[in-house]
Amino acid sequence: MPVKKQQKTVINPYGTTIIEDYERLYKEFGIQPFKPLLSQIPNPSKYMRRNIIFGHRDFDRILHAIKARETFAVMSGIKPTGEFHLGTLMTAQEVIYFQKQGAMAFYCIADIEAYEDNNISFEKSRQFAISNVADLLALGFDPKKGCIYRQSKEIRVKDLAILFGRGATLATMKAIYGERHIGLYLAALIQAGDILMPQLQDFDGPKPTVVPVGVDQDPHLRFTRDLARRFRGKHNFIAPSSTYHKMMRGLDGSPKMSKRNPMSYFTLGEKPENVKMKISKAFTGGRATVEEQRKLGGVPEICPINEICAYQFVENDAAIVEAYQDCKAGKLLCGEHKAQTIEHVLNFLQNHQEKRKGFLNKATEIIESGN
Amino acid sequence: MPVKKQQKTVINPYGTTIIEDYERLYKEFGIQPFKPLLSQIPNPSKYMRRNIIFGHRDFDRILHAIKARETFAVMSGIKPTGEFHLGTLMTAQEVIYFQKQGAMAFYCIADIEAYEDNNISFEKSRQFAISNVADLLALGFDPKKGCIYRQSKEIRVKDLAILFGRGATLATMKAIYGERHIGLYLAALIQAGDILMPQLQDFDGPKPTVVPVGVDQDPHLRFTRDLARRFRGKHNFIAPSSTYHKMMRGLDGSPKMSKRNPMSYFTLGEKPENVKMKISKAFTGGRATVEEQRKLGGVPEICPINEICAYQFVENDAAIVEAYQDCKAGKLLCGEHKAQTIEHVLNFLQNHQEKRKGFLNKATEIIESGN
Repeated sequence: MPVKKQQKTVINPYGTTIIEDYERLYKEFGIQPFKPLLSQIPNPSKYMRRNIIFGHRDFDRILHAIKARETFAVMSGIKPTGEFHLGTLMTAQEVIYFQKQGAMAFYCIADIEAYEDNNISFEKSRQFAISNVADLLALGFDPKKGCIYRQSKEIRVKDLAILFGRGATLATMKAIYGERHIGLYLAALIQAGDILMPQLQDFDGPKPTVVPVGVDQDPHLRFTRDLARRFRGKHNFIAPSSTYHKMMRGLDGSPKMSKRNPMSYFTLGEKPENVKMKISKAFTGGRATVEEQRKLGGVPEICPINEICAYQFVENDAAIVEAYQDCKAGKLLCGEHKAQTIEHVLNFLQNHQEKRKGFLNKATEIIESGN
Repeated sequence: MPVKKQQKTVINPYGTTIIEDYERLYKEFGIQPFKPLLSQIPNPSKYMRRNIIFGHRDFDRILHAIKARETFAVMSGIKPTGEFHLGTLMTAQEVIYFQKQGAMAFYCIADIEAYEDNNISFEKSRQFAISNVADLLALGFDPKKGCIYRQSKEIRVKDLAILFGRGATLATMKAIYGERHIGLYLAALIQAGDILMPQLQDFDGPKPTVVPVGVDQDPHLRFTRDLARRFRGKHNFIAPSSTYHKMMRGLDGSPKMSKRNPMSYFTLGEKPENVKMKISKAFTGGRATVEEQRKLGGVPEICPINEICAYQFVENDAAIVEAYQDCKAGKLLCGEHKAQTIEHVLNFLQNHQEKRKGFLNKATEIIESGN
């Protein structure tokens, strides 16, 4: 009898995260399921409604603040190593969602991490930062109700990193991040500084803070929650909350979209014909022949086309369900679904590109105004 | 036949440094002997003349700058964990010596290290910093020709530390500093920033820089010289030079003065009767009885009384030699030598205490003016 293959669940923010079983994250890492909270959320986001946000830590605290109209913050960001892609798009939209629910919004350009992890110079990442911020503004982030900053220019996050240095043993760092150079551990301390900065007196002190991220970022959250406890005496920190969205699979069928694999993803700045080509060539959950698919139906659960529609490009929940059912029933074939998806995606991109042009000056101004 | 005991030579800036054989430092660590340079130095310090500075790295570069009247810098500092003692006094006098030879002088208050290594808060170390700077000014440091700063307030050293993060593997850090928490490794990167800051464009760019320190600090120098090489492309750093003074033995005969052992040292702020008591009770190189000492002579080589006179409290070189010879000849007994030494030390302390009072306001101003 063949041995049952051990399911792989690896969470590594600086490596490749592979999740084959989300259930195990609840048991092994203490992530709480999001679904039981859904009915209580006044105005859930599409990621929440569609079960893309599947887990959280202490989100109850945020829910309470939203309902009671109490002060809370949202904090997330981007590593400025390139243009916005579907992953960073999700995070940005989550930040904007919470800003619209009343949160003080913090969006960090993680240029120290880009340097320590990817060896991208600050001069180079500054260019990406401007482009990324233009995307963020075009998506609806309100800079008047939020704070966008580069780590390299924010003294407060550096000083928090220095403070936290005493709270981080080598064993902890190695357990979380593996055996890496010191700069990467320093970037992790800086990131803890990012997450807790909204609670400093400069921003009116301790408050619930939600960090919406991909589940690959959970180790940063666990680390930061531990630091928040250790340094509670000094700053009275409230442990940050988090929500976790699932990781999108690659268009080519690989387990995760990855820069190393250009056919697995596209950016918001990519040429339409390129995006069209990538979607046309994408892997699907289709069968070997049309006949077979008509008879057995497709497998939308493993289909990246189904996924990018559900995650991003189809606004109407009912349309998502309908496409899923039609696929299962063998009524919606892959070619047709791809054609529809290409139309949705190109519409979105054209519309977004148009908007973002109008925000490039403002984005430059925001990046330049960093102290 | 008994096995010959292995001689111990341990250099650890964050632990206890024990040097039983200075010769081995030349062979094993690549420190160069200082003596061959002595005759070429226009105006050698007492530490140089008396062979207390016994080793160096690339001091030739500094010697050339002094002779040619070219720009060079001196950089050293203090960890603000208490009052000036005889060790920090030596370093301060070395910095002042090079300042008088024409160096741009940098004196760092290593408050990040005091926090990471000793858990002394920035509020607490600020008080020590003011006191330490008053001592430095009373000893003759000219703030108009130098830069005194706290690490926690100096953005440039933090930014250099972030830059250097990529150049420091975990293996290197562990080899140099042992298995410690990340904060301590961060402090080491910050210290590398201190040593190379004088070469930034803000201070007119690359220049020879001498770091006069106790030999226990050599690991920081080796680490920083390595970083200077790695990041030469970006900043065109010249590898920093160094001089090494010997470590003073404890008054109680222990191998090193240590805060853990209050009878082994005194501070410049200590009450005269206390200092008098400690010197009176000090270990010496004397014999068991007066008769024996008259006959055999003393052993000044192991005597802390001889040492503090030679290192610090007797200005006249001839008087040092005379005391040494009289001790060897059995003419100068320990009681008499202690009485003379107490007089020298109390004179120095009284004079210094008087001067430093006049510098407390200036010291506060310097510490407060940190950006």
